[in-house]
Amino acid sequence: MSDFSFVGKPTPMIDGPAKITGNLKYTGDLKLSGMLHARFVLSTYAHATIRSIDCGAALAVPGVSSVLTAEDLPKVVPSSRARLMLARDRVIFVGQPVAIVLAETPAAAADGAELVEIDYDPLSSVNTMDAAVAKGAPVIWPQGIPTGAEDEAAHGADTGGESESEDEEPSNIAGKTQLATGDCAAAFAQAAVVVERTFETPMVHQSSIETQGWVVQPNPITGGATMWGSLQSPFGVRQDVADVLGVPESDVTVYGMPVGGAFGAKFGLYEPLVALVAATVGKPVSLILTRSEELLTTNPAPALRLYGKLGFASDGQLLAMQADVTADTGVYPSGLGGFAAMQFASFYPCENLSLASTNVITNKQSVGAYRAPTSPTAFMAVETLFDEAAAQLGMDPVDLRLKNAARSGDPAPDGSEFAPIGMVETLEAAKQHPLWQNRESSRNQGRGVGVAIGGWMGGLEPGAAVCKLNRDGVLQVQIGTADLSGTPTTFAMLAAEAYGVAPDKVRFVYSDTDSAPYGGGVGGSKTTYTLGNAVIRAAQDARRQTFAIAAEEFEVSAEDLEIVDGRVQVRGFPDRSLSLGELAGKAMTFGGRYEPVHGSGSQAVTDRAPSFCAQIAEVEVDEETGDVNLLNLAVVQEVGRAINPLAVQGQMQGGAVQGVGWALFEEMRYGDDGQLLSGSWMDYAMPDAVQAAPIHTQIVEVPSRSGPFGARGVGEPPVIPTVAAIANAVAHATGVRMTQTPMTAPRVLEALSSR
Amino acid sequence: MSDFSFVGKPTPMIDGPAKITGNLKYTGDLKLSGMLHARFVLSTYAHATIRSIDCGAALAVPGVSSVLTAEDLPKVVPSSRARLMLARDRVIFVGQPVAIVLAETPAAAADGAELVEIDYDPLSSVNTMDAAVAKGAPVIWPQGIPTGAEDEAAHGADTGGESESEDEEPSNIAGKTQLATGDCAAAFAQAAVVVERTFETPMVHQSSIETQGWVVQPNPITGGATMWGSLQSPFGVRQDVADVLGVPESDVTVYGMPVGGAFGAKFGLYEPLVALVAATVGKPVSLILTRSEELLTTNPAPALRLYGKLGFASDGQLLAMQADVTADTGVYPSGLGGFAAMQFASFYPCENLSLASTNVITNKQSVGAYRAPTSPTAFMAVETLFDEAAAQLGMDPVDLRLKNAARSGDPAPDGSEFAPIGMVETLEAAKQHPLWQNRESSRNQGRGVGVAIGGWMGGLEPGAAVCKLNRDGVLQVQIGTADLSGTPTTFAMLAAEAYGVAPDKVRFVYSDTDSAPYGGGVGGSKTTYTLGNAVIRAAQDARRQTFAIAAEEFEVSAEDLEIVDGRVQVRGFPDRSLSLGELAGKAMTFGGRYEPVHGSGSQAVTDRAPSFCAQIAEVEVDEETGDVNLLNLAVVQEVGRAINPLAVQGQMQGGAVQGVGWALFEEMRYGDDGQLLSGSWMDYAMPDAVQAAPIHTQIVEVPSRSGPFGARGVGEPPVIPTVAAIANAVAHATGVRMTQTPMTAPRVLEALSSR
Repeated sequence: MSDFSFVGKPTPMIDGPAKITGNLKYTGDLKLSGMLHARFVLSTYAHATIRSIDCGAALAVPGVSSVLTAEDLPKVVPSSRARLMLARDRVIFVGQPVAIVLAETPAAAADGAELVEIDYDPLSSVNTMDAAVAKGAPVIWPQGIPTGAEDEAAHGADTGGESESEDEEPSNIAGKTQLATGDCAAAFAQAAVVVERTFETPMVHQSSIETQGWVVQPNPITGGATMWGSLQSPFGVRQDVADVLGVPESDVTVYGMPVGGAFGAKFGLYEPLVALVAATVGKPVSLILTRSEELLTTNPAPALRLYGKLGFASDGQLLAMQADVTADTGVYPSGLGGFAAMQFASFYPCENLSLASTNVITNKQSVGAYRAPTSPTAFMAVETLFDEAAAQLGMDPVDLRLKNAARSGDPAPDGSEFAPIGMVETLEAAKQHPLWQNRESSRNQGRGVGVAIGGWMGGLEPGAAVCKLNRDGVLQVQIGTADLSGTPTTFAMLAAEAYGVAPDKVRFVYSDTDSAPYGGGVGGSKTTYTLGNAVIRAAQDARRQTFAIAAEEFEVSAEDLEIVDGRVQVRGFPDRSLSLGELAGKAMTFGGRYEPVHGSGSQAVTDRAPSFCAQIAEVEVDEETGDVNLLNLAVVQEVGRAINPLAVQGQMQGGAVQGVGWALFEEMRYGDDGQLLSGSWMDYAMPDAVQAAPIHTQIVEVPSRSGPFGARGVGEPPVIPTVAAIANAVAHATGVRMTQTPMTAPRVLEALSSR
Repeated sequence: MSDFSFVGKPTPMIDGPAKITGNLKYTGDLKLSGMLHARFVLSTYAHATIRSIDCGAALAVPGVSSVLTAEDLPKVVPSSRARLMLARDRVIFVGQPVAIVLAETPAAAADGAELVEIDYDPLSSVNTMDAAVAKGAPVIWPQGIPTGAEDEAAHGADTGGESESEDEEPSNIAGKTQLATGDCAAAFAQAAVVVERTFETPMVHQSSIETQGWVVQPNPITGGATMWGSLQSPFGVRQDVADVLGVPESDVTVYGMPVGGAFGAKFGLYEPLVALVAATVGKPVSLILTRSEELLTTNPAPALRLYGKLGFASDGQLLAMQADVTADTGVYPSGLGGFAAMQFASFYPCENLSLASTNVITNKQSVGAYRAPTSPTAFMAVETLFDEAAAQLGMDPVDLRLKNAARSGDPAPDGSEFAPIGMVETLEAAKQHPLWQNRESSRNQGRGVGVAIGGWMGGLEPGAAVCKLNRDGVLQVQIGTADLSGTPTTFAMLAAEAYGVAPDKVRFVYSDTDSAPYGGGVGGSKTTYTLGNAVIRAAQDARRQTFAIAAEEFEVSAEDLEIVDGRVQVRGFPDRSLSLGELAGKAMTFGGRYEPVHGSGSQAVTDRAPSFCAQIAEVEVDEETGDVNLLNLAVVQEVGRAINPLAVQGQMQGGAVQGVGWALFEEMRYGDDGQLLSGSWMDYAMPDAVQAAPIHTQIVEVPSRSGPFGARGVGEPPVIPTVAAIANAVAHATGVRMTQTPMTAPRVLEALSSR
């Protein structure tokens, strides 16, 4: 029994019809008057000096209006990836933009880009984390590695631990972190069971259906610009662009366009460069990446190597956790290694911790966020080790987790105490799941069943919302953030519930950074959790204002009013009522004597609501080929409150499918010369609908303390435990422990052969 | 000595540079992907049956994609002018749209429009108010004249008085009003001096530099649309368009684009038609009127005939006022005749009133609002009669006005008491003006000096505003109304004053009806007066929120804080300070613990602030040709508080120049067959910079009770008294009373010859 009118009811996405009929306009659909189409000329070397660039043939292509190189742009210190303009004097990764061709048509730009002649003098490069730290390795940034720290903080990555100051000697080590509590050595020494392994995951690409793209209109009066783009953080991009253009951020306007997939990749990349190019030529410019460019020159997840070690008492009590992470972050530094170590140790409270990370740079494209950054790797490690330890302890793997799982009040990794959380409830639900209950009969059929859990602390960011009432009785709800996962529908439901109208009387307004209330970036599974509160408050404010008008019209107290079927009526007097539209109209008219209904709501939630997803994978392993066939995947997720169960299930399914990609298919593979070998969707393998297997979603609800109606963030958790669940299922089926992804047939076959 | 930091300081328009460099984009600059250009085919007859329309030749023009006639559009009851779609079966005025040609280029559309063959069967038409009411006149709307009442109310015209129910017999009389108080007959009988005359003014066209124009993107999913246009009332247009499309207004989005002049004409006209056309063809459509179309098919001021009569006691006390107005409103009815009668009698309180009006329709384009609708005519009458009476009473003309002028507490025409007003102060200032003081020496040089005053009650409409603080320390101010007269600069100054930053740290945000707070239409001299309060409240709310963040940061009470040079500091401790941008940034960041600074403010001012403008004209009349040469024009206006004196003076000058046009140049002249004879700017005469003569502005300030910092509306008053002042100057110079505008040389010569 629910007390809610709308919350909790499966509700189709309100913009679904516009999306599936092709009527929604994306960035690539935009045409501005006089707009030029841009095409990059990308470096074909991982490391080389640029001897010369000949643009003559490109400029001769009909329709090409200009070809810009670094010489044509103001010098910008490349202190962060978003501040790396066109290559100047040398290139440091394959796919680095060296020149940009501007033309009247996309075809002319592409033709021109093919004809730009760049004369390179190749240099030796480092393309793996081992090569990068080898003695005598070429140093990528001899003048010092850019810190990029501010940049990353702005984009929401909690780097965890303390950064140590580096040696003076130039190297490719971009940073190390170290965190130690208790006495790990002593704890391991007294442990009954110690398990340890080294895990490796490659760079993995977010690969949205929509590639990254931007359109910029320069403003010659202010020096600022207006930008349209497929973006996770319009307000973040506004600042990045303003910084490079050298104007206050208020002179830059950013329209967050509908996003055709982002997954962490669209927090900001080429916006400042495109803006600078447009300002330089004084015309609107459109740059829509091709699929090949998307794979060559964006920001996939880092490659990680994680040595993990756990020590348990004989009763299963976790005594010590150790992780040592090395991250290959491409040409720019990133704090993601430290974050991986934190994630490894976050949700099984333990007094004795030793967490270290080393972030290494290589001559490859730089890395960025990918849904639950580093967590598939961190949980592959901790959940594989838990599984192994359970076997050695002779315990049920779920029971071992339950014994050590974080509970409300336990110390959380950020130094606080865990708020009410549902890790235990999630594990209990997984334990009862038929797929888990039937694991022995599955095993008897030659299959394997594995379980794993993943946790996510959840992001936080202040934000505001506006809620207006129109003369048609419709509420217009406005927030300043992008939509990656159907949040407009969720927000419409929250507004409907809080105000007291049906969700079909709510319209969601997309707008730009000038017009919208501040909304922050979309990431960290925080949008509904945080902004949902602002929307509810704005709707409540609008309701209060509506009642104030009605109270004066009916000469009663606002407490005596109620909303019934879109009308405000005096309680007990249904004939004394006015429709919401009529009430709005009394303020929205010449000579009206009421203030328009314009509700505002803000939030600055500081209380994290960690959320958990357990998954149970059933696999079949072909022992002759090593092929892992995923038969079933149960996704059990604790979401606090499923505002819109359809949207929550969509997130659970989508995350799990990406998890399957991590586990079995996806890898950015580079040649020894730093060339990307998986540079198209023919080569970069992602699971299709059949390969992703039937996904069985199960929602668990343990209301959060501060989320809207108890909701928690749901976006990140479902991608986290998939790798581990499948690896544990493979172990259950075959007895071998996979420690490297993707678990392709050759790798599994090799593991099987070394049994 | 002013207590203000910014209010009252002459401040150039903040968007001036963008305007004068051509960088501001107007509606005609917009190009949407796949957009079709539209061109009307206009009726060449004032009244005719349409026998047939042949679109074949037009459709054969390369680039023409379709030609629509009434048959292609859904039937819409033409109950108001904005609901008149393409002519169906008959035309009722020259210039009525009969078909619309859609093409890939404007040139192809124009070529196509010339080739549409319409076979008409001409009917007899009525083209003057006398012909319309003559016995046996053809009846324009045999089924009954559309009321259009709601429509007009929405656009802000107070029709005044009570409408009488009409005879049952169909006629061209669209409505009559009658208002009588006291006993006029008796008062006139006992008056020492009675003056009476009949005045006539023709249709006058608003003639903005930018013609009317619209771009519409239909939305096939919702049935709604997005519209861009040069508009005075984006929210009004939203409703008009939604009504005709048959969708809730929330499914229509209207962008009020920069407006290149409006003056009352842009409250809504072809928006519903263009939206319906775009929906019908399923593509974006742009219709930008040509100058000829602008003159033929829009909505000029009505032609008016006003019989006025005043009776005075021998001491100059006004005893009785009578007005009988006939208005020629073209093919659609309008309540403007009644409004003219009210304006005649509004500002000289008098117990005995007899006010009547008859609104007549004719086979001409319909009429609309023009800056201070009907007031140039109403004040030509009352101020000429005052001038004449003063002569007969042997009183100074200004003294006679002063004796009878409305004062605070006097009964106002809307039934209330006048709030604090400055009619007396305005007259006193005019009296002291050198141009007036030197009138006898001017007379001795063969010139004439005339004075007149005009009053305007001022419009009211609720509205809201938003004020955000950005990380660069800039305030973004957002309202939902159009800019006709530089209000963004004024609002920026109000926000700066209320918040405590410099005006150059304020940005004004233009947005659409979805994103913007409700702002209502721009008209009635109400924008600064009403919305200024909302802006101030929003800025104060933002200041309060900023101080709340700073108070927590510094652990002091908000009362102990102040803003100095863009920094919030603890009073007396300049080293304990944070910049506004830093404070904003603490809320606008991942993990921030403060709510973003998002101030809201609303207003529903119900207190009118009437404002007055007196003008003194000095003329030279060539008695041989009748040519009136305007030598000087003093504009003395009471504005409550001149927030931005530059903008106020601009309004005073612009209004006076239009007044000069009314007085001496402008006339929509029609032939007997209803053909417009002044259909281009070669034929429709407007004053140039030399003809408008030197204009000397003088600001008087009598603070209003409810306006922002005491401001009153300033837009309408300066156009009101110019005709009367010039007519009185002509009388002073020549002894003849002109009663018809424009006072062209032939008319003046005729009057001189009948002395």
